[in-house]
Amino acid sequence: MKWVKIFSPATIGNIGPGFDVLGLAVKGFGDVIEARVIDDGIVISSINPDTGISKDPKKNTAGIAASEVLKILGANGGIELKINKGIPPGSGLGSSAASAAASAFATNYLHGNKLSKEELILPATKAEEAVSGDFFADNTAPALLGGATLTRSCVPLDVTKIGSIDKLKIILVTPKITVLTKDARKILPKEVPIKNFVNNMANSCLISTAFAKNDYGLFARSLNDTVIEPVRSKLIKGFDVVKKNALAAGADGMTISGSGPTVFAITDNAQKAQYIKTVMIETFYEQGVESSGIVTEVDPIGTRIIK
Amino acid sequence: MKWVKIFSPATIGNIGPGFDVLGLAVKGFGDVIEARVIDDGIVISSINPDTGISKDPKKNTAGIAASEVLKILGANGGIELKINKGIPPGSGLGSSAASAAASAFATNYLHGNKLSKEELILPATKAEEAVSGDFFADNTAPALLGGATLTRSCVPLDVTKIGSIDKLKIILVTPKITVLTKDARKILPKEVPIKNFVNNMANSCLISTAFAKNDYGLFARSLNDTVIEPVRSKLIKGFDVVKKNALAAGADGMTISGSGPTVFAITDNAQKAQYIKTVMIETFYEQGVESSGIVTEVDPIGTRIIK
Repeated sequence: MKWVKIFSPATIGNIGPGFDVLGLAVKGFGDVIEARVIDDGIVISSINPDTGISKDPKKNTAGIAASEVLKILGANGGIELKINKGIPPGSGLGSSAASAAASAFATNYLHGNKLSKEELILPATKAEEAVSGDFFADNTAPALLGGATLTRSCVPLDVTKIGSIDKLKIILVTPKITVLTKDARKILPKEVPIKNFVNNMANSCLISTAFAKNDYGLFARSLNDTVIEPVRSKLIKGFDVVKKNALAAGADGMTISGSGPTVFAITDNAQKAQYIKTVMIETFYEQGVESSGIVTEVDPIGTRIIK
Repeated sequence: MKWVKIFSPATIGNIGPGFDVLGLAVKGFGDVIEARVIDDGIVISSINPDTGISKDPKKNTAGIAASEVLKILGANGGIELKINKGIPPGSGLGSSAASAAASAFATNYLHGNKLSKEELILPATKAEEAVSGDFFADNTAPALLGGATLTRSCVPLDVTKIGSIDKLKIILVTPKITVLTKDARKILPKEVPIKNFVNNMANSCLISTAFAKNDYGLFARSLNDTVIEPVRSKLIKGFDVVKKNALAAGADGMTISGSGPTVFAITDNAQKAQYIKTVMIETFYEQGVESSGIVTEVDPIGTRIIK
C-alpha cells in the first residue's frame, strides 16, 4: 500500500490570557507521520527512540487518534504509522497534539477522506484527553486548522479558526526544565477575582480581534495575563527576569506557551526578534538555566500532506 | 453664535458575556444635544422635564463631559446645551453615556475640533464616572465610535472599535422595572469559578471575532453568560421565562443589556424578529410586567452631527 507523509505544526496553547480558549500554530517545529493502510489494527512501527514515547497505539496520541477516526468512519482495515517527532515532548508546544492531529489527518485521508479538518478536531482531542486526562482543544485545533483558533465550548466541541497575523515574529525559547501539564493544571486557582477575569477577557478579546483583522498593532497590546501567568511562571526558574529583559530588549509582550516551560515573546521586527532571542537565552543562562530558541512566525495552514 | 445638533445612539453594555469589556451601539434610540458657544461657563438651558435629570451642569453627564473637554482643550469661552433625551434614564441602554458622548462631541466640535472621537472617550467616561461612581467605557465608547467596541484597559484607557454585523437584528425589550446600576453592581460576585471565567472569555472572544469579521453565524452561537446573567437576571421579574420563550420563538440568544432592565435578543431574520418581540412582550405581560420593545440593528457610526 502507498505511504502518505503528513506534517502537523507546533502550537502555542492559550496565547497568553486566553486560557483553554485560544491557540496558535507556529512554523519551525512539527511532527511528521508517515502512514499507510494495512489490513487490520493500528501499528506504530517506528518512533524516535530518544523521546521515550510508547509504541503501544493505546498509549500514544497518534494511535488513539487513528482509532477514533477509524471508529467514526466505520472503516474496514487498519493503519500503520511511522512517527517522526520534531516537537520535544513536555515542551509546552503541543507535542502530543501534533501527533494526534497528523495521525487523525492521515487516517482519514487514507480511508476515503470523508471528514473535514474541523471534524478531525474531536477525535484528535479525545486522543489528547486519553493521555493528559483533560479534554482541551487549544493545541489540537490550531495544529489541524493553522493560524489562531478559538474553542468556544468543549462539550459540544465548538471551534472557530480566527485568522493569522502576517507581520508577527514569535520568539520561542525553551528552557531545559521539566513542567508536567498535570502539575501545571494542579496549581491553577479554582476561583478568579472579578478584576482579573475582566482583564484576561478583555485582552483575549483583543487577541481575537487582532487575528481576525490581521492587525499586529492590536496584538502588540494584548499579551497580558493576570490569571494564569502569575501562578505558572513560578514553575519556570528565571521567568520574571527573562520577561523583564525581553521587554527591555523591545518585545511587545512575553508569556508562557501552554503549560510551559517554553516561553514566547512577540515583535513585528525581524532584526529585533533575533536580539530578543539572544537576550532571553542569555538571561536564562545567567539564572542557571540552559535554553534554546528560535524566531518563527504563524503557520497559517496547519496539518497538511507533505509528500 | 451658531447652534450645532449632535446625535448619540443608545448602547448595549457588555454584549452578554463581555462584562465591562464589550459594548454595542444600536439604532432606534438616541440623545440629541443642541449646543452653541457662549462667552463663559457651561449652561444647560433645557432638558426634557419628565426625566427628572438635573440641569446643574455639575450633576449631569452632559455638563461634566463638556467641562472635561474644555479642560483638555484649554479653551476660552463656554458652551450652552439643550438636551433632548431619547433614551430613557435607567433603562440599561446607556442613557447617561449618550448625553456625555453627544456633549463631548459638541464641545470639541465648537471649540476647534482638535480631538478625535477616540480622544473624546476619556472625558465622556470621566463624566459617567462622576455620576455613577465607576469608570467604565462600555457605553461611552460604542456611543462615540459606533459598532461594537472593546475596552482592553480602563487605566490607561485603551479602546478598540471592533466592527459591525450587517445582518444582525436586535430585539430590545424594556420592562417597566427599575434597576439601579449601583444595585446591579453591588450584587456582582467578587470571585468567578475558573470554569465560568473560561466560558465567558471564550464566548466574548467569539463575539469579538464575529464583529471583526461581520459574521452573524459566529455571533449567533456566542451569547452565553454564566457569570453575570445568573445574578443580575434575578432583578428582572420574568427574565427566565421570557428568555425561554424568546429562544423557543427562534432567537439565537437573549440576555441583559448592561445592568438592565432592558433585555435583548438576536436573530438575522427580520420577520422572525417581529415575532420574537411580540412573544417577549406578551411573556413579560403574563408575568405581570408591562414592557415595550423595538426591532433594531447596529448603529455603525456612533455620535454624529445631524444638523
